[in-house]
Amino acid sequence: MCFRNFSAIACLALMISAPVCADDPLASWNDGTSKTSILQFVAKVTKEGSPEYVPPAERIAVFDNDGTLWCEQPIYVQLAFSIDRIRVLAASHPDWKEKQPFKGILQGNLIGALASGETAIGELIEATHTGMTTDEFHTTVLEWLKTARHPKFNRPYTELVYQPMLELLGFLRANGFKTYIVSGGGVEFMRAWAETVYGIPPEQIIGSSGKLKYEIRDGKPILIKLPELDHLDEGPGKPVGIQKFIGRRPLAAFGNSDGDFQMLEWTTAGAGTRLGLIVHHTDAEREWAYDRVSHIGKLDKGLNEASTHGWIVVDMKRDWKTIFRD
Amino acid sequence: MCFRNFSAIACLALMISAPVCADDPLASWNDGTSKTSILQFVAKVTKEGSPEYVPPAERIAVFDNDGTLWCEQPIYVQLAFSIDRIRVLAASHPDWKEKQPFKGILQGNLIGALASGETAIGELIEATHTGMTTDEFHTTVLEWLKTARHPKFNRPYTELVYQPMLELLGFLRANGFKTYIVSGGGVEFMRAWAETVYGIPPEQIIGSSGKLKYEIRDGKPILIKLPELDHLDEGPGKPVGIQKFIGRRPLAAFGNSDGDFQMLEWTTAGAGTRLGLIVHHTDAEREWAYDRVSHIGKLDKGLNEASTHGWIVVDMKRDWKTIFRD
Repeated sequence: MCFRNFSAIACLALMISAPVCADDPLASWNDGTSKTSILQFVAKVTKEGSPEYVPPAERIAVFDNDGTLWCEQPIYVQLAFSIDRIRVLAASHPDWKEKQPFKGILQGNLIGALASGETAIGELIEATHTGMTTDEFHTTVLEWLKTARHPKFNRPYTELVYQPMLELLGFLRANGFKTYIVSGGGVEFMRAWAETVYGIPPEQIIGSSGKLKYEIRDGKPILIKLPELDHLDEGPGKPVGIQKFIGRRPLAAFGNSDGDFQMLEWTTAGAGTRLGLIVHHTDAEREWAYDRVSHIGKLDKGLNEASTHGWIVVDMKRDWKTIFRD
Repeated sequence: MCFRNFSAIACLALMISAPVCADDPLASWNDGTSKTSILQFVAKVTKEGSPEYVPPAERIAVFDNDGTLWCEQPIYVQLAFSIDRIRVLAASHPDWKEKQPFKGILQGNLIGALASGETAIGELIEATHTGMTTDEFHTTVLEWLKTARHPKFNRPYTELVYQPMLELLGFLRANGFKTYIVSGGGVEFMRAWAETVYGIPPEQIIGSSGKLKYEIRDGKPILIKLPELDHLDEGPGKPVGIQKFIGRRPLAAFGNSDGDFQMLEWTTAGAGTRLGLIVHHTDAEREWAYDRVSHIGKLDKGLNEASTHGWIVVDMKRDWKTIFRD
């Protein structure tokens, strides 16, 4: 197909340049400060004998998920999941027709549904994320992902992960880093698919979570998801989560919103060479452009203080050749 | 030294047999059911193409610590640490002379000090494990370990780890297993030394923990240990901890007391080939002999139900050639 008509020339050019591309671990990143800073950081901490060398066991890199590794607009994917689950479960809950936040969701009025803010979110989570076993929830998430499509791109959500960030994850792992997700999203929601999509195993995923209860049902042990918050992995909850789950300060942290501020702060305040990076959504054409006043992924304090802390601010439009996974 | 007098013959015999020993990954285990069961389990799950094969990413092994990896008698090591800390800190707390549990500890009356049970333990933990940063606590534990000695063996506590279990940890890791500690002990206490002693990094240590608070002090971020329980990693708290921190059911679990019962139950109730193992303390001469009525490491239900669940019960006296690390 490639060799038909004019594109054959382009194709040939691509083939010639392919070996160069194949050698570039960050092929989807345009040359510039962001890419150079990442490459220099990794070169420094992995160079044996150098004063900045860090042994592999201490090479921990933490990544926010929503807006950093995959698309978080126009609503968080986990909220889209919750809304779809409410619609499915509504048949067994006739009272939901008259009760917010369910009523709004069933009527297609999301703003009305979420008017009470955290209370509404709490009720949605309780109705869709608790009362089942961890195994049952896992299966429900995977089943949903098979058919759910993003409203703007009409693609499965797991295809809307950022190709440059996938390359960055792989590049860090190839250099002895252990890559973690540290996200405000629900840990069990992410664990269902993150190993397949990002190559990050369940034990390297830190997120918000509810309490669990161990019990024996029909002679078999199960773990039930309870409607009680256990850990809120957002803002100052991120360094707390890092200490709880990893117990070691990361060398590098990657985020996109002010919810990642303390994670970046904690990481880059450590001794020696550290890397902090913020993905700035600047590409309204290929994805979204938002920052200081956005309800989702608000980035204000981070933009103000990035240079003080020496954090890289990635300009998505300028720095990334492609946005979504190939 | 070895070549003087009669022991030269024994030494020579040892040298001749050394190559054979070096090939045995569990050299400190006597031949018998326990050793054979471990070897067979690992052979099964690592044999590619076999129906029992398990990919490396899913090879998770969880180990209790106190009484399973190191000596827990005559009192838990962490309690010995707390007692020594109370003595050090007493100078700044004159009121402790008249107040339990501190009074009893300062007078050398441990039974009196701990008469109120969990309340006393809670006050000891609060006084010795909270109010400082995670980094400060880490340093305090390491400093203490340098000089503290076990009352019976007069050796540093970190030398009183079980040689057969160290070999087992190494054998599992050599076969692609990720080894975790899942202990009722404090997570930050264990993280201070477990990487050096067991080769288990901080992120693979699950234990009981208090809440943490992130704050900025003198312009630098710190994490403060608060006097509020976050996770109790004991009994049913062990499978809960496994799901919270690992998110995947282990293939193998190793414990020694009824506090490990649910961890063994959860592990071996999983599909496919699993391994559950209990270390039974039967060696009053080389270590301690205790089980059903012991205040520390009580093992009653586990002994009753081990055969029903197919768990191996290691007879320390019979199964282990040596007890402590070489």
